[in-house]
Amino acid sequence: MIDMPGKGEPLDVLLVEDNDAHAELVMRNLEHHRVANVVHHVTDGEAALDYLFGRGAYIDQQSHQQVNLVLLDLRLPKYDGLEVLRQIKQSEELKRIPVVILTTSRAERDVANAYEHNANSYVTKPLDYEKFSELMDEIGYYWLAWNQSPWLAKKS
Amino acid sequence: MIDMPGKGEPLDVLLVEDNDAHAELVMRNLEHHRVANVVHHVTDGEAALDYLFGRGAYIDQQSHQQVNLVLLDLRLPKYDGLEVLRQIKQSEELKRIPVVILTTSRAERDVANAYEHNANSYVTKPLDYEKFSELMDEIGYYWLAWNQSPWLAKKS
Repeated sequence: MIDMPGKGEPLDVLLVEDNDAHAELVMRNLEHHRVANVVHHVTDGEAALDYLFGRGAYIDQQSHQQVNLVLLDLRLPKYDGLEVLRQIKQSEELKRIPVVILTTSRAERDVANAYEHNANSYVTKPLDYEKFSELMDEIGYYWLAWNQSPWLAKKS
Repeated sequence: MIDMPGKGEPLDVLLVEDNDAHAELVMRNLEHHRVANVVHHVTDGEAALDYLFGRGAYIDQQSHQQVNLVLLDLRLPKYDGLEVLRQIKQSEELKRIPVVILTTSRAERDVANAYEHNANSYVTKPLDYEKFSELMDEIGYYWLAWNQSPWLAKKS
């Protein structure tokens, strides 16, 4: 049980991002945010689904069952972000994991589609480096400290 | 289109909370958070659904269509929070609205049920007044500034 943010054990984040500069910025911020969270980074939609469903290259790993947050870009190689979102939210095993869309797109259709497929939140990447960094702090603070993880009960 | 948090027009929040002290604290924080957001407060599940679906006492109001965030307690008179959540997320008209569960309950079953019914986030109320106030700041900042509203496209 968590009473105050910042307490508790490290949380696992899956980052699905094909832009290396963005990924580096996200990881630098999240991995040092109050608790030492673990960010697993994949660069395409297929790898994201393999990781989450524990198949392909991840068939022997159990860590996917403990993902506390997915940060999901929309424009991705292989499967796009919307398809990854759809498969997560249709899976009885995975649907509880909070999925935050993190994208440069402000297109009305993208926002609508994401919420339509039960994205937990939709955030656009600021162009400015400092603002981006501030956003990652905010995401870390809100989702990894204040928000109740769906798996917390399993862990404690 | 919002580039940075804190810009843009006031956003509408529906607060569903039967504890007056908690409601006052939430409103005091959210209504003065960077932009002058509008918080509509109802005290039971039936009034929440009437407001959102524009029926009953709210049959002549259109404002429900512009709700940007629902803050939803779980233990409520008439319909409980889980039933309100279920009806929001099953409605084609309303399902895109972010619903944040804001409750004193840390029960495993409540957390699981909330995510199961597509709650966007689940946050527990801190017992400490200052922490509660800090949480409301955080919720205001994250959900009303950073998070992309599902209705933004309609408004602009």
